[in-house]
Amino acid sequence: MNECKISDLSVGQFHEEEYVVTEEMGKEFAEISQDFNSIHLDKEFAEHSRFGQRIVHGMLVGSYISGIIGNKFPGPGSIYMSQTLNFCKPIYYNQKFFIKVEVTKIDKEKHRVMLRTICRDAMDNKLVDGEAKIYIEK
Amino acid sequence: MNECKISDLSVGQFHEEEYVVTEEMGKEFAEISQDFNSIHLDKEFAEHSRFGQRIVHGMLVGSYISGIIGNKFPGPGSIYMSQTLNFCKPIYYNQKFFIKVEVTKIDKEKHRVMLRTICRDAMDNKLVDGEAKIYIEK
Repeated sequence: MNECKISDLSVGQFHEEEYVVTEEMGKEFAEISQDFNSIHLDKEFAEHSRFGQRIVHGMLVGSYISGIIGNKFPGPGSIYMSQTLNFCKPIYYNQKFFIKVEVTKIDKEKHRVMLRTICRDAMDNKLVDGEAKIYIEK
Repeated sequence: MNECKISDLSVGQFHEEEYVVTEEMGKEFAEISQDFNSIHLDKEFAEHSRFGQRIVHGMLVGSYISGIIGNKFPGPGSIYMSQTLNFCKPIYYNQKFFIKVEVTKIDKEKHRVMLRTICRDAMDNKLVDGEAKIYIEK
């Protein structure tokens, strides 16, 4: 596993991934997170809710952000210090969305990197916004 | 599904749950989050890392917090607005830990409730600390 280096990063560098969450993936995440709330799983219940249909667990987006940081960008060697998540708009099943992780600040002395972590739909609406702080040893 | 009501909540009220994450659960979360970082999955690699052994995905704790909020406390009817997560200490597989969700502020006019979400080990060491903001319609 090649570990990332802080010297390879620069402010403005980013990585973006596309996602679609199916109902099956929603069920799997419900099992894992033990979050069986009807708004995520019960079609009829959700149709009568403020959202009009079932919505994806917000924390699944948090999990994908963590997946990008730990695997792809900056990737292995990143140590997760903190994450903020602001859930702006609901995400529905089978809806395409994008997560972008962008370097906003680098503190080489303290080995810390700030990342903006933003999730948008295909119309560029902000769905989840937040920031991650990571530590990179090398 | 019985929905929670903001009038039933008071500052200081809390709910606590106990967790143990097995290696199998770690593998499942890796599949879901697409985070296959060796620090979570590769025993030998992790033994030579700063942590000395494999660690649990931090965002799995985020997922459990989301599970408590959506299902148990305050429970159905809670709409997740934001979550902060500060990863203070690593969590290892098969280690017992506790997540406590506590009401810290209630704004009945704006229908908003602040929750402190804290994860501790059996020795009372803070593992993950954070805050959630939720909206409760009724």
